[in-house]
Amino acid sequence: MGSGKPLVGVLGGMGPLATVDFLHKLVEECQADRDQDHVPVLAWNVPQIPDRQKALTETGESPLATLQAAVRLLEAAGATRIVIPCNTAHYWFDALQAASTVPFIHIVDATLTRLRASGRSGERVGLLATRGARDSRLYQDRLDAVGIDSVVSSDEELDSLFTPGCYAVKRGSLIEGGQLLQRAAEQLLARGATRLVLACTEVPVALASIQSPLLEISVDTNRALASACVAYWQGAQPDCIGQASIADPDP
Amino acid sequence: MGSGKPLVGVLGGMGPLATVDFLHKLVEECQADRDQDHVPVLAWNVPQIPDRQKALTETGESPLATLQAAVRLLEAAGATRIVIPCNTAHYWFDALQAASTVPFIHIVDATLTRLRASGRSGERVGLLATRGARDSRLYQDRLDAVGIDSVVSSDEELDSLFTPGCYAVKRGSLIEGGQLLQRAAEQLLARGATRLVLACTEVPVALASIQSPLLEISVDTNRALASACVAYWQGAQPDCIGQASIADPDP
Repeated sequence: MGSGKPLVGVLGGMGPLATVDFLHKLVEECQADRDQDHVPVLAWNVPQIPDRQKALTETGESPLATLQAAVRLLEAAGATRIVIPCNTAHYWFDALQAASTVPFIHIVDATLTRLRASGRSGERVGLLATRGARDSRLYQDRLDAVGIDSVVSSDEELDSLFTPGCYAVKRGSLIEGGQLLQRAAEQLLARGATRLVLACTEVPVALASIQSPLLEISVDTNRALASACVAYWQGAQPDCIGQASIADPDP
Repeated sequence: MGSGKPLVGVLGGMGPLATVDFLHKLVEECQADRDQDHVPVLAWNVPQIPDRQKALTETGESPLATLQAAVRLLEAAGATRIVIPCNTAHYWFDALQAASTVPFIHIVDATLTRLRASGRSGERVGLLATRGARDSRLYQDRLDAVGIDSVVSSDEELDSLFTPGCYAVKRGSLIEGGQLLQRAAEQLLARGATRLVLACTEVPVALASIQSPLLEISVDTNRALASACVAYWQGAQPDCIGQASIADPDP
């Protein structure tokens, strides 16, 4: 496994709309003039996965067994990289990577690459994240390690703004979700954040649905992960170009 | 094969953006309050497939071998239905279905279901389709069989409007593509079409990008196919509901 033609395996479904948003950004981030130059991807978008937020607050079953089965499916299908377009599910990243021979791309690594490429010194990052991602310090420790200060939602902000906003997206109420999540973001800005990391992949679709001006100061972790996949594909591409070039770019 | 838990296999990549658009409509068409009630899907979105339009005009290699390999992959991964969110690729539908034990859902069947549900008598359908789909009479014969009159693009309209519009979408120039495709549609209306069938899955994304008023009189074949998948999933769902219900819908 992992030695064949490049194929990005997507461990998705968390939620299904966030996975579609990731796949859309994968097309957008890949500057390509024809179908054949886009990233080859196999997306497992099967949302029948135990709820991650509930698992991390010990009010629901662990999704690990379901995720491990999906990784085996992606491996068997020839994936050469695996990505998870869900920040909260990265709680299980190390366990999933340890049980797989296929290299995973970590969403926080992809986000740090983007943050550092466009960051200014003295910034304070506001993390829009689930309780599980906040409490497992998914972003905070890695930001600390590179000297970036961060601020997170309080318990009350999670209960009254972030979590209801996130579940509104999951039931298709994007505008309601966007308004709640924007208010959660404003609380972080009020506590000194100068920039936002949308550290839950439900957030960018919701903020986009209300054309939130906060998107301008935000790093979209789903887009950062897509960009990392494009970099992988364009670096690994030579043996595929030959196959693709049977079709001419001109109509 | 085909006897496990429901899993919609998507034979995508033709083009990659049309596949993402299909997956997005699959979420939109499924009225669901939580992640776990959405359609489980495995999407092969690998655009390194010989160009379908070129193959049908005998200026390029056939995509059949690549598509057959992808069908085998989706079968092995447990797909219980297979769909192709590309009208032109339906030229190879019968060959692909014949070689597979998994039932396929045909995009024209899905479109006819939608047309007949909302149609009025005496309508004339304008078909926005590739030359290959037009010349293989993908839609015309099936529309004839149910007594629906149709009108198609001329060779000149294909060369000057439809085909350049379609390839503009493939290189990411959605607005340019939308303008060309809208002009192609206007020609069909000028020849008596009272309704449009967007019989190429690149068309709806392009028309949406220019907020075309023609969308109001159009049947979106990608959305029709998504709707058929939702109907399949909701009909086949009982044995999955139990698995999904471990997560409660309330945060």
